[in-house]
Amino acid sequence: MMYTVQVKVMPLKDLLDPQGKAVLGGLQNLGLNQVADVRIGKHIDLQIEAGSKEEALAAGEEAAKKLLSNPVMEIFEVSVS
Amino acid sequence: MMYTVQVKVMPLKDLLDPQGKAVLGGLQNLGLNQVADVRIGKHIDLQIEAGSKEEALAAGEEAAKKLLSNPVMEIFEVSVS
Repeated sequence: MMYTVQVKVMPLKDLLDPQGKAVLGGLQNLGLNQVADVRIGKHIDLQIEAGSKEEALAAGEEAAKKLLSNPVMEIFEVSVS
Repeated sequence: MMYTVQVKVMPLKDLLDPQGKAVLGGLQNLGLNQVADVRIGKHIDLQIEAGSKEEALAAGEEAAKKLLSNPVMEIFEVSVS
């Protein structure tokens, strides 16, 4: 069966996120002053052929560890829908 | 109160996603052949100061429309956690 596995990759909390800071500045220039902080990461949708939800999740985690995230700078979360 | 608003911005389904295709090739080279398709978008966490969850969601949608997404190429989803 085909499962959609969602991987969210975000910069670690302790690291600066210059892209997020730039977007925060842009939002404030647009008048959206209620926004206090912005952090930007990646969202990856994987279509995975697997026998069960658990198998799909495991394949998604392997993909996230091996290729999609950099553990020095990023943290990832994997979920199956 | 401070709300965390999550914005997911993905390329439209009908458009090619060359970054996703490249990652799909990379995953297959790593032996993850059960992955059939990859699409890559952005995940943005906004910290929004608002009086209610609805207000935070509305501000997040405004930010997504005005700055975070390009409606010609992308679709966005906003959620508050």
